[in-house]
Amino acid sequence: MSFNIQPFHIPKRLLMGPGPSPVHPSVLEKMSCAPIGHLDPFFLSLMEEIKTMLRAVFQTSNEFTFPISGTGSAGMEFCLVNLIEPQDRVLVGINGLFGRRIADLAIKLGAEVKTLEVPWGQSIEVEQLKEAISKEKPKVVALVHAETSTGICNPMEELAPIVAESGALFILDTVTSLGGSPVFIDQWKVDATFSATQKCIGSPPGLSPVSFSPRALDVIAKRKTKIPSWYFDCSLLYGYWGHERLYHHTAPINNNYGLHQSLRLILEEGLQNRWQRHYQAHLMLKEGLSQLGLKFFTPEDRRLWQLNAITVPDEKTEAFLRKKLLDAYGIEIGPGLGPLKGKIWRIGLMAEGARKENIERLLEALKKILSR
Amino acid sequence: MSFNIQPFHIPKRLLMGPGPSPVHPSVLEKMSCAPIGHLDPFFLSLMEEIKTMLRAVFQTSNEFTFPISGTGSAGMEFCLVNLIEPQDRVLVGINGLFGRRIADLAIKLGAEVKTLEVPWGQSIEVEQLKEAISKEKPKVVALVHAETSTGICNPMEELAPIVAESGALFILDTVTSLGGSPVFIDQWKVDATFSATQKCIGSPPGLSPVSFSPRALDVIAKRKTKIPSWYFDCSLLYGYWGHERLYHHTAPINNNYGLHQSLRLILEEGLQNRWQRHYQAHLMLKEGLSQLGLKFFTPEDRRLWQLNAITVPDEKTEAFLRKKLLDAYGIEIGPGLGPLKGKIWRIGLMAEGARKENIERLLEALKKILSR
Repeated sequence: MSFNIQPFHIPKRLLMGPGPSPVHPSVLEKMSCAPIGHLDPFFLSLMEEIKTMLRAVFQTSNEFTFPISGTGSAGMEFCLVNLIEPQDRVLVGINGLFGRRIADLAIKLGAEVKTLEVPWGQSIEVEQLKEAISKEKPKVVALVHAETSTGICNPMEELAPIVAESGALFILDTVTSLGGSPVFIDQWKVDATFSATQKCIGSPPGLSPVSFSPRALDVIAKRKTKIPSWYFDCSLLYGYWGHERLYHHTAPINNNYGLHQSLRLILEEGLQNRWQRHYQAHLMLKEGLSQLGLKFFTPEDRRLWQLNAITVPDEKTEAFLRKKLLDAYGIEIGPGLGPLKGKIWRIGLMAEGARKENIERLLEALKKILSR
Repeated sequence: MSFNIQPFHIPKRLLMGPGPSPVHPSVLEKMSCAPIGHLDPFFLSLMEEIKTMLRAVFQTSNEFTFPISGTGSAGMEFCLVNLIEPQDRVLVGINGLFGRRIADLAIKLGAEVKTLEVPWGQSIEVEQLKEAISKEKPKVVALVHAETSTGICNPMEELAPIVAESGALFILDTVTSLGGSPVFIDQWKVDATFSATQKCIGSPPGLSPVSFSPRALDVIAKRKTKIPSWYFDCSLLYGYWGHERLYHHTAPINNNYGLHQSLRLILEEGLQNRWQRHYQAHLMLKEGLSQLGLKFFTPEDRRLWQLNAITVPDEKTEAFLRKKLLDAYGIEIGPGLGPLKGKIWRIGLMAEGARKENIERLLEALKKILSR
């Protein structure tokens, strides 16, 4: 082979899309430390600290809380493959791509999947969920907290009690919400949740924090069929992440270094302060967009702070404008997906992205681009 | 929560166990670059270069060659979950932990699993494989090239033609061999292979390079049952890693930065030179161990260069001695697993580990520890 691939030089980007989000330099610095063994006593103590900090961020006392060695979708698969058996009746709330994804996997796993579908850009509301649960009588209810594809926040303070009352197992996608807006795993009686490091947690992608309630573990212990996975088998995984320290797989050491530091930053800042920072960033962006004549796609009372879906100024030129924003200003924002392709832009204000100077830079660039 | 978790400081370690292996500083430097978007045109071009370089390292022309976003075991699951359907007859060669692991997953997937088992520390030989294939008539044969748990190299130059003759699909674990000793995916007519970044590739753990032959893709296209996975579904994954560039999951950007650089280092060094370096390192270690009176556990003609299994000097003190090596000299070597627990040490000479100065340091430390 004639070999002529050169070392790369990453272009400067300001990440204001749906993720990955900008990463604090101290997290990147930790990522670049030399790896040590996955059973090294020092790494084991780091794992314990990560578990402790994740519990604080999820606001849970679940012992079974740790990062899966894969991205957010790996966490989704981890939750479903352990909790769902063939023929299980699973109700999935769908108002965007990520609800659809849960349903797709549940079908692959042989579940009897029922869906509660509302149009992309709307939220799932109490009466709809009540009705669907009462009609379908599901064993499992799966919802998405922050729908990254549409910028909608499904109102968990209201929906979670409905699931709890029904007695169904509750799976909640907290990929984009965790670390950026209020998440209360214990208070909401969530049985299984999965998140990701590259949104409001502020680490590079590669890990998926998860948490299982004791009830979820009990259900898994009583499964009648084999878990059709080795990589995601919770008892094997917890042999390593729990106190036995049995070798399962080789954890992505450096990603865990980064996660440890980003969790430290979150708890140093304080969860409440961090949510407040994301909220203030959202308000600032909203004000600036309004001055530019840009309109939100989502209703005000169900808007995510960290993922702002706005109607594109012009469907014909939106792709060109996004490319210009990236090429001329080094700023990434996200396009619409599926039925919203070409119709919305998704502006992420996540982790280090949710800072005044970034929003100013984005608004300035948008102003220039739109005025030409 | 009272928050008092301090920033960590990684202790200095020389990694001479079964992996992770020491990583070149330039790879760690690339890992610490700021992440960019997983659909950024720059990242897409990096992905193409990674695919090109992986093909060169696997010695394959398989278009379908890329890294799975998980560790080596994720690559194993990727291969099996796509290729194996319930009731498929699968023959697994087992002479260590990693053959056993393949069989365990195949059972979980509902396959009719047949095993060719030889004692840990021995290799699988031609006549045994011939006999097993002729008896079991499997649809799939799965073998481990380099058995990390025992230090045995199963002789692929001899075994691969037997599998090819049988017409069975051929799955090969190249986790510990790739980049450290000869691997010829096309020449051996391998249909599906998986490796890992943290052994002889010389990157931190977190990615699993895989490759599928056109025949494997054809078999998958004709599946009768659904693939019970979303994260590992090859058609969904290749929608992203192929030319369509459809969003599937958020690739671990920084791990791919590191992989790109470590593949560059491999091809700059040259595959032949790199294999030779691992072989010379093995010879040097062998000479030194012999002077210390330490004996190999494995037969000379089937020894791995990169993973040297030696009989412990004394079963009662072996754990104490390994701990001393780590605590007093900062050197990690690996213990035995399963039936070999307490009986062998596993000394890895992988990637940056396979260098004269490291071997000298290890031998020096062993000498001091053993003389007390």
